[in-house]
Amino acid sequence: VLGIVGTGLIGGSIGLRTRKNGTRVIGYDADPAAAAQARARGAVDGIASRDALYRTCETIVIATPLSAACTELERLRGCEASWHLLVDVASVKRPILKAAQGVANFCATHPLAGNEGSGPSAAAAELFEGRTWAYVPTGSAELDGRVRAFVEGLGARPRAVGAAEHDRAVAVTSHLPQMIAWLLAAKIRAGGELSEALCGPAGREVLRLGRSPREVWRDVLAANADAIGSAGAALSEELAAECGAVDGGNGP
Amino acid sequence: VLGIVGTGLIGGSIGLRTRKNGTRVIGYDADPAAAAQARARGAVDGIASRDALYRTCETIVIATPLSAACTELERLRGCEASWHLLVDVASVKRPILKAAQGVANFCATHPLAGNEGSGPSAAAAELFEGRTWAYVPTGSAELDGRVRAFVEGLGARPRAVGAAEHDRAVAVTSHLPQMIAWLLAAKIRAGGELSEALCGPAGREVLRLGRSPREVWRDVLAANADAIGSAGAALSEELAAECGAVDGGNGP
Repeated sequence: VLGIVGTGLIGGSIGLRTRKNGTRVIGYDADPAAAAQARARGAVDGIASRDALYRTCETIVIATPLSAACTELERLRGCEASWHLLVDVASVKRPILKAAQGVANFCATHPLAGNEGSGPSAAAAELFEGRTWAYVPTGSAELDGRVRAFVEGLGARPRAVGAAEHDRAVAVTSHLPQMIAWLLAAKIRAGGELSEALCGPAGREVLRLGRSPREVWRDVLAANADAIGSAGAALSEELAAECGAVDGGNGP
Repeated sequence: VLGIVGTGLIGGSIGLRTRKNGTRVIGYDADPAAAAQARARGAVDGIASRDALYRTCETIVIATPLSAACTELERLRGCEASWHLLVDVASVKRPILKAAQGVANFCATHPLAGNEGSGPSAAAAELFEGRTWAYVPTGSAELDGRVRAFVEGLGARPRAVGAAEHDRAVAVTSHLPQMIAWLLAAKIRAGGELSEALCGPAGREVLRLGRSPREVWRDVLAANADAIGSAGAALSEELAAECGAVDGGNGP
């Protein structure tokens, strides 16, 4: 039995795919409406209390937002583990490792997958197909093997990476692109209906990414502020230099 | 008969779609290999000399890069027009209008469509389907009507816009996103194979846009340097401020 704590976009997608594999899935969400919606979508077989879920499931995924995942892990410190594998899916890994000290059979992971939606209604069984799913090696070859098998069972590709290295990389591959998409999307919308009509492929992509809700990202960006700050400062200088260096000699 | 001067991605796509409509298409390209490739792909029925094309076609599209389009238009000044409609498709409109002064039956246009490829091999009949196709009104209702009919015949939506207004808008909807994609893609690639593996949806999109060849964009960016410079300076300041303001209070 797989247990999912937090049945939103990622948790719901894990549930949909796991049930396709024929494994039973139990869900819990602090918001009962989200849990009910996940059940209605077929992402979980049943809804359980938080305690019952931790008592009965062999594999458990914490798929809440980052700060809730840290709180959840702090609560589990020193608990006797009836689970064989416990993973999170948050997109910054250093605060998770800190919160998870003393939590048994735990591995920090991050699927590089998502879409501009959120909540169980945006979940999709094929969300992880062929995607990288990063994990921070635990020091136990047996536990790492369970993580890789879990990830491969969802159609994704496991990839070992250190937490600090991971957080530096995603600042550039994910967090900065998202912040720039919000800024550019606001500039496009400030140009009114004309600007939206004059979007080519890149502009349409910017507007799509710009719809990703800020509240989903807030604690992630805050937790990775150091990596974002240094990469972002370099990028904004490069952008200013490139825009200034565009040769106006052939201009109108 | 439709004539296409420049049988690359855009010219080739116009040819593919026009031939689907049952209209004969003649192509010319300064590079004979590109013209031959367009013919092999079925984007044109035949290849003609530049002079023969201008003498025999009722509708003519100049689909060369921007600076070649300006040169082409300057050559046509004061020529007697045997064509009923002549359009360009360049993505900056002020230099085109300047070059086209005294060219008969001409309208400056810009399809908001494309992909990260280039050349006839990247052409696709459905490239313009449902897309906005901007045009700068000519002052002649009759000529404007021909432009709209031509655009609608390719599956696109005609949209009237002034040249300066157009160029300011595309600086934000197209040119800045492209420049940022190159900068971010370089940062991702600098992180090596690990960073490429740790790309989520936004990062993969950045890498895709970043593959658009710079030489295709060079004269376009140069021609719109003023609009790019002011919008880009504002954006780089906003980005530096946002990255600095990410709340590090919850950080690791």
